Amino acid sequence: MEVTISNFTKVLPEVEKAIQNCTFLSIDCELTGLNVTRNINSYDAPGQYYDKVRNNCKEFLVIQYGLSTFRYDSENDKFKQQSYNFYIFRRPMNRNIPDQRFLCQASSIHFLINQCFDFNKLFKEGIPYLNDEEVKKYRSNLEDNFKKRSDLIESQQNGGHEDIIPIPENAQDFIKDVIEKIETFLETEETELQLPKCNSFFRRLVYQLRTEKFAGKVSMETRQIDKDRVLFVTKLRTKEEEQEHEKKIFEGQLEELEGFIGFNKVLKMIVKSGKLVIGHNLCLDLLHTIEKFLCSLPCEYEEFKELAHGLFPRVIDTKYMSSTNPFPDLISSSVLNQLLERLSEKPFSIPNIEIEEGHSGYKILDNKEHEAGYDAYITGVAFLAMWKYLGSEQKLKDNEIFGNMDLLEPYMNRIYLMILTDNQYIHLGGEDSNPSRDHVFHITFPKDWRLNNITQLFSPFGNVHVSWIDETSAYVGLNKRDQAAIALNTLSQSDTIAITTYAKRQAFLSGTKTPLSSPLGTRKRRKSSEGPPSSKKRRTDSFPSIISKRSIDRIEEERMEAEDGSTPGIYKKTFEVDTTWD
Amino acid sequence: MEVTISNFTKVLPEVEKAIQNCTFLSIDCELTGLNVTRNINSYDAPGQYYDKVRNNCKEFLVIQYGLSTFRYDSENDKFKQQSYNFYIFRRPMNRNIPDQRFLCQASSIHFLINQCFDFNKLFKEGIPYLNDEEVKKYRSNLEDNFKKRSDLIESQQNGGHEDIIPIPENAQDFIKDVIEKIETFLETEETELQLPKCNSFFRRLVYQLRTEKFAGKVSMETRQIDKDRVLFVTKLRTKEEEQEHEKKIFEGQLEELEGFIGFNKVLKMIVKSGKLVIGHNLCLDLLHTIEKFLCSLPCEYEEFKELAHGLFPRVIDTKYMSSTNPFPDLISSSVLNQLLERLSEKPFSIPNIEIEEGHSGYKILDNKEHEAGYDAYITGVAFLAMWKYLGSEQKLKDNEIFGNMDLLEPYMNRIYLMILTDNQYIHLGGEDSNPSRDHVFHITFPKDWRLNNITQLFSPFGNVHVSWIDETSAYVGLNKRDQAAIALNTLSQSDTIAITTYAKRQAFLSGTKTPLSSPLGTRKRRKSSEGPPSSKKRRTDSFPSIISKRSIDRIEEERMEAEDGSTPGIYKKTFEVDTTWD
Repeated sequence: MEVTISNFTKVLPEVEKAIQNCTFLSIDCELTGLNVTRNINSYDAPGQYYDKVRNNCKEFLVIQYGLSTFRYDSENDKFKQQSYNFYIFRRPMNRNIPDQRFLCQASSIHFLINQCFDFNKLFKEGIPYLNDEEVKKYRSNLEDNFKKRSDLIESQQNGGHEDIIPIPENAQDFIKDVIEKIETFLETEETELQLPKCNSFFRRLVYQLRTEKFAGKVSMETRQIDKDRVLFVTKLRTKEEEQEHEKKIFEGQLEELEGFIGFNKVLKMIVKSGKLVIGHNLCLDLLHTIEKFLCSLPCEYEEFKELAHGLFPRVIDTKYMSSTNPFPDLISSSVLNQLLERLSEKPFSIPNIEIEEGHSGYKILDNKEHEAGYDAYITGVAFLAMWKYLGSEQKLKDNEIFGNMDLLEPYMNRIYLMILTDNQYIHLGGEDSNPSRDHVFHITFPKDWRLNNITQLFSPFGNVHVSWIDETSAYVGLNKRDQAAIALNTLSQSDTIAITTYAKRQAFLSGTKTPLSSPLGTRKRRKSSEGPPSSKKRRTDSFPSIISKRSIDRIEEERMEAEDGSTPGIYKKTFEVDTTWD
Repeated sequence: MEVTISNFTKVLPEVEKAIQNCTFLSIDCELTGLNVTRNINSYDAPGQYYDKVRNNCKEFLVIQYGLSTFRYDSENDKFKQQSYNFYIFRRPMNRNIPDQRFLCQASSIHFLINQCFDFNKLFKEGIPYLNDEEVKKYRSNLEDNFKKRSDLIESQQNGGHEDIIPIPENAQDFIKDVIEKIETFLETEETELQLPKCNSFFRRLVYQLRTEKFAGKVSMETRQIDKDRVLFVTKLRTKEEEQEHEKKIFEGQLEELEGFIGFNKVLKMIVKSGKLVIGHNLCLDLLHTIEKFLCSLPCEYEEFKELAHGLFPRVIDTKYMSSTNPFPDLISSSVLNQLLERLSEKPFSIPNIEIEEGHSGYKILDNKEHEAGYDAYITGVAFLAMWKYLGSEQKLKDNEIFGNMDLLEPYMNRIYLMILTDNQYIHLGGEDSNPSRDHVFHITFPKDWRLNNITQLFSPFGNVHVSWIDETSAYVGLNKRDQAAIALNTLSQSDTIAITTYAKRQAFLSGTKTPLSSPLGTRKRRKSSEGPPSSKKRRTDSFPSIISKRSIDRIEEERMEAEDGSTPGIYKKTFEVDTTWD
């Protein structure tokens, strides 16, 4: 179901019920840009990775949010689903909400428009949102202003005092005219007077007449009439009437604020439910979800982990799941649509899924890829097929599988990290994977060096994986890990390059000069391990088998299209980065 | 006429003819954001102002460009107009063009969508553009690559050499299969072989087979098939055939580049014509026009002035014109639609204007405000009405007026600067206005100070105009200029605040410690004055009579809506800035 500002309030109770009753739910975001792959290095530690994605989240917007709920009907052994596709856009509401500036990435916009994304609908009918901090700030502004206005009523009754701006020459006729109008008005029985339209500076000049000329006689307020803001004069009420009037305005503002909170209400429902949340390549979506609709992302990586785990105690990333035992032997692509295609064939099978009666949902054949609601839906379907497979491997019946969280334990709360070479993941509520990078070196070299120079340098020690940092530095990973000591020893003699171990480099970056054996991001405030060490198969080569992702896919594809050997000059280095396939 | 990528090439010759034949032309831009008023201080020097607008231009996009041409038909004493409304958006074309990231401002988007701006059409059918530097870079990349590929043909024929990536385990079956397919293909009469779809990394692995396994036997190239990129194998041609093939590809690429240049062609036509260009509140539009469609904006202000004057030797800003003698006495608002309304009444009159036969244009009653084409049109109409007024004041007949540039001399090449208090303007090809700011001081004060504290501090010396810089500093201008010396003397004694002259502050900012009597921006490389000193009336008060502008209007309005006295807490200082009406 498409949800915009026009039906949001009406749909909300139905969404709440769906969340409360579901076995699990799946989510997906469409964004104004990704950009995230730009800075990430394939040897980043999870904490470094987090920093980069976090910065990215600040710049781009979530413009569509997909939510799909799946309820297991054990009696009939089938799933009932409901899916929602929310358009999300925050208009500049009033001066309590900053006029948002946001980045767009041409490739993302281009991609979405080709998928028939309706930007006109988005900008016209998007659902607003405010995260908790924004709501708090906003509410406290309203309270402050209410208090100030209440105080002002006192002082106005006593003549008041405010900064008086001298009337410039070109305004004098206008103001004279207004004074006459008000004086005439005061002698009539009329209850209010609409003043002539004028610009905001003139309105300010008129406004000061309230205390300067008509103290104790009139109230003024600005109202929006079509496209214009117009001043209205009313005869001054008693102090009590004024206070009552102010209170009503304040209550109206609080009600308005309620409306502005918008989409956050859905997230609050999800958080409150504590339900299992499924996403595909969840990292970016999870960070955006928290930052946009719940609260600011903390600077500290470990704090983020605690926060995210507290908000979403059970999440599964189908990208991580599909690339972890036993699936990599059965699944060759974890790109969402390809994954779903694979999971529709033996040895997998998709459980029976129906749209909940009287509600809206998708069918797989709708084929609305990159509509957030549809992507959320097929993510849930893919998850179900894998869950079913895990159970059927243990000869369990469907009704013994769906509900059996033990089957999901190896994948629980592990977030896939695109681009990283050694299958690092973020483990919410647990310890991150921490693969050894003793075979990785940090090197600096002359500006004109290209991939060939580096591979030649390391050629005595076998093949290498080069991950560029900038024009003059890179991480280099040896395929033959046992060559690490001799490579370091030999190349340390070089006059042309400088080489240091990965651990030393990380220590340098973190400001500690002493060598460390573990990557930076996982050092701080490590909690005692809450889960068993990952049982997943470690890849022996330094290339992740599949690099692309649902939404990041397209960017990756773009970046990688240089495989035909034509090196565009301006992207010389970038191209080389790409050929190393980080 | 609406112009998108679908009719751009067809319309171009007609546009060229219209430009060549016109008496003058008018332009207008719609942008993804303005934001420009945020940082500008009402006491900025023109050079400082330029820096801020220039930075702004880098972030936002031009998404609609309006062009209206006016041809005076002296025989029939009427103007013939043609108007065009171009949708402008650059899709990510290929890897020679960076994937553009651009800012949007929610208020601008909201405003445009409410004016029925069609964002779907923009993103789907926008006309591309590349400024000259981008074209040059792109062309040189293509040439480099052509050369590289030509060289590669030699080396390939000789077996070639390129970086060989070891085949990871999960790719080995795939690669084995591909090798078999190619071997079979080589034994057939077929001319080309389409390989199975695969991801870009796999394609790279296949690609290296060309030299590693099949040197001298096959060529490979990637083609786009629907959404996928697919590798094709052809039997190796002779060196000459290959070179011929490469040349064709190169020529195709150059042709493609021609298409990407897009909207710049229109700007080139305007520049080439040397025609009089009219704009309303032209500063932002002029900078965007140059930066997006011609060349990067120089860092140095004086360089910009030379560049802009060279490109557009005759420009008139109707906002400047309408706020300069004799018009301020007759016109109370320079907001475009209000200006037009005023100019439709006596003592003004709008000349006879018709749409050029067989072409498209607007009527005033179309009322399509903020459609760039329409705004360009009514800007031209407003200009015509003022031109006619100037002539009729001198008892000239229409055919003596339209063509009489002397009448326009006082306004020629003077660009209005919004927000500045003292009617500063940029004078292209001449010396900027340089009003004395001897009555202006720079003060720093405690963080908790508000407007009241400053006005009280200066109260012995009369009313002041406060222009906030940040939380602890502001410029303060005295209304009574003769109090400057005594104010400085007295307040220099203060322990709470620090006060310095405007000139000293500017000198400090420019790195010179010695006091200067002229503002920073106009100091550098001043050219000898090319025009007579402006004859316009200097305002004696420190408030510009009208602050708002066509597109900036709405922002200003937003910022100024605080006139009802309710001070939002988070914008405390901002609000105070607004009440000073910079």
